[in-house]
Amino acid sequence: MENKIDNIKEEINNYLNQEKNVKEDWIEDNHPIDIAEALSELEASEINNFTKLLETEDLADIFEESEKDLQIDILKSKSSQEIIDIFSHMAADDITDILGLLTIQKRKELLRHMKQDDALVVKNLLGYDKESAGGIMTTEYLLLNKNLTTTEALKKIKNIAPDTEIIDTIYVSDDRKKLVGSVDLRDILSSDDDKILEELMDDNIVKVTADVDQEIVAQQVAKYDLTVIPVINKNDILIGIITVDDIIDVIEAENTEDLYKMHGVDEEERSDTTLLQSVKSRLPWMFINLATAFLATFTVAIFEDVISQVVALAAAMPIVAGMGGNAGTQTLSIVIRGIALGEIDFKDNWMLLFKEAMVGIINGAATGLVTGFILYLMYGNYYLGIIIFFAMILNLLIAGMFGFLIPLSLQSLGIDPALASAIFLTTVTDVFGFFVFLGLARTFLIHLI
Amino acid sequence: MENKIDNIKEEINNYLNQEKNVKEDWIEDNHPIDIAEALSELEASEINNFTKLLETEDLADIFEESEKDLQIDILKSKSSQEIIDIFSHMAADDITDILGLLTIQKRKELLRHMKQDDALVVKNLLGYDKESAGGIMTTEYLLLNKNLTTTEALKKIKNIAPDTEIIDTIYVSDDRKKLVGSVDLRDILSSDDDKILEELMDDNIVKVTADVDQEIVAQQVAKYDLTVIPVINKNDILIGIITVDDIIDVIEAENTEDLYKMHGVDEEERSDTTLLQSVKSRLPWMFINLATAFLATFTVAIFEDVISQVVALAAAMPIVAGMGGNAGTQTLSIVIRGIALGEIDFKDNWMLLFKEAMVGIINGAATGLVTGFILYLMYGNYYLGIIIFFAMILNLLIAGMFGFLIPLSLQSLGIDPALASAIFLTTVTDVFGFFVFLGLARTFLIHLI
Repeated sequence: MENKIDNIKEEINNYLNQEKNVKEDWIEDNHPIDIAEALSELEASEINNFTKLLETEDLADIFEESEKDLQIDILKSKSSQEIIDIFSHMAADDITDILGLLTIQKRKELLRHMKQDDALVVKNLLGYDKESAGGIMTTEYLLLNKNLTTTEALKKIKNIAPDTEIIDTIYVSDDRKKLVGSVDLRDILSSDDDKILEELMDDNIVKVTADVDQEIVAQQVAKYDLTVIPVINKNDILIGIITVDDIIDVIEAENTEDLYKMHGVDEEERSDTTLLQSVKSRLPWMFINLATAFLATFTVAIFEDVISQVVALAAAMPIVAGMGGNAGTQTLSIVIRGIALGEIDFKDNWMLLFKEAMVGIINGAATGLVTGFILYLMYGNYYLGIIIFFAMILNLLIAGMFGFLIPLSLQSLGIDPALASAIFLTTVTDVFGFFVFLGLARTFLIHLI
Repeated sequence: MENKIDNIKEEINNYLNQEKNVKEDWIEDNHPIDIAEALSELEASEINNFTKLLETEDLADIFEESEKDLQIDILKSKSSQEIIDIFSHMAADDITDILGLLTIQKRKELLRHMKQDDALVVKNLLGYDKESAGGIMTTEYLLLNKNLTTTEALKKIKNIAPDTEIIDTIYVSDDRKKLVGSVDLRDILSSDDDKILEELMDDNIVKVTADVDQEIVAQQVAKYDLTVIPVINKNDILIGIITVDDIIDVIEAENTEDLYKMHGVDEEERSDTTLLQSVKSRLPWMFINLATAFLATFTVAIFEDVISQVVALAAAMPIVAGMGGNAGTQTLSIVIRGIALGEIDFKDNWMLLFKEAMVGIINGAATGLVTGFILYLMYGNYYLGIIIFFAMILNLLIAGMFGFLIPLSLQSLGIDPALASAIFLTTVTDVFGFFVFLGLARTFLIHLI
């Protein structure tokens, strides 16, 4: 994989001296996304020299597949008219995304230069929340009237096909322009007699309104195995479609976001983020973690007199904290994935909470027994063993319950259920774990000394 | 969403008393997957009564969309001949998945009853690793010779279309049956003059061999925005295709697996797993975590004499452990996502390791400064503050480096990079963090008392 990109990088530099037909062959032989990837590793001047030589259509293909940073670099070197030319080969949703990267002034200038119809479509798309169905939909769909015959439909499809994103699903509207169904192209192709579309169409289609969150859209597409999902307005009129390649991007982005947020990493960070950006992304979370860690410190500080008399307690503390944190994060992982996949069923909440509590008690008892026995062997005091046994049961019970309650509470507050949940959780298990363990130790202090 | 499933559950029971045409309308009005979801909440006898009344084709549609448990329940109530009838409406890859759930004896019996051709295809598919391209591919594709004209091609497509999974991408082979390109149906439809396929086809297609891991296949599909990817054998002959709906399932499964494995949860566990299964899934990991937590305990035990003289150290321990664990998990999250998305670039490894080390030093210094100051205020000893300041820098440096090295080392050993990585990591940060912190405390003990 890497070699491929390196080769392309080298070839891009050779490309500048090639004959026209060699250039055309080279462009055809390499995927726009591979070229975009290679370009992103080159200097601004090299990028500029290369893009100047490309046909606008080829440049548009590469441009569409580029990362944000490269897109901005390319746009910087182009005039407004050149940008408009690139746009003329791009889908409305991709143009909208690009405009979102620019200053309002530049955006307005480009919209002024665009064809009025196109500008209207793009302006409309710009109005939707970026993470909603409207924000990721495109307007290049096939919509035909339900009274068309298959022959008429096929003729229309042939004409429109080059301009749409998806051709194997054709949407069907009634005379009042309402979306009433969809037909597979295969059914139109293989229908011999001249049926009207209404007879062939599936009138039970999965659709979303423009304001639906992209995560919900992705769940619908995944659940019903769709390659495209229609977006309608409040009057049931088709206003766009979302294709499965964009849905995959949504799924990957949401997955990254969940894992990152859970552990306090900014959702924009990638493995190639610069040092300064990484520090900026992670340091705020480190300070939040520090604030919560001090809660654990204050808890321990309350019991300093006990620890000074039984130092073995300090040695056992990492077990209480570690096991509680780990058990809670197990539950947390399951609940966060369950929410992301739309599997968590709210009416079963109390049953699930009860189950997590029970898992905590059982696992706490099992590991607590072993821990108690080892500590007894280490320090020769069986009270210490009994105390940690009960502390583990209580801590893992709390860990299971909070691993379940934290993400669901965040969600019911309208906050992302993954947000810093691991940080909150370990605070709860640390504070509670130390409190129970050291509290029990104080109660039975006379047997420990 | 829930109401929908509840409605269907109710209607399934009414369904038993309906007229034939009412039944047919009802089946058409409800998505097979919604019916499957409702069925999975019913009793075995209700499921049996319902499935008995269905046309085989409708049953096959519902069966395909069912969860494993429901599929097994349905199969139990059917004779071999009935199962074969259901299979006749299903794609080869789905049949293969079902057979994988059965005992070898039952599997052989069903294969004996199947049409010889179909049985051969399925036997072949059964031979591939479940998580490889071969294991998730299907054999219902469109392959045409490159010398066919568009008119000839269109005629063939019309005939074959009902039996394929994907119709908008047509694969093209040469006379020796090698896969040489693909044509979009739209290009065939909109080509006016009678071109041969070779002229229209794209000969630069992304393809995989059958042994490629499903995660890599998913990365390719996501990268190149594909709706289908061809699978070839060593001789470049097309042997199957993988459709994007299966790729979405792979992506979601791999994402669940990564998050689970990272935190020590069995990949099979779901939010609706029973109590006993959950304990069985998580307890082994809790014991692994316990073993590693004891390493931290032994480390602290070495310094018991120091702690007994300066109990404030015990109170500061949760900060050292918590901050190190959190910083390391930030790095871990980024590296695991980077590997999953194919973004981590191995030649840049040393640069990235250096960056993570630097982030650790900077964030350690920033949070260490604040921690040192607060501890100074709490205990009035500025040596304690200075010690924790340096301990935090060293611990976060180690955390960043191991958060990076653990997943990459696991990967280079051929082990899933996410496997228990959070557990290993917190062990490293706990043991090292305590060792540095308490070690520094011992060195400067005279200033702390």
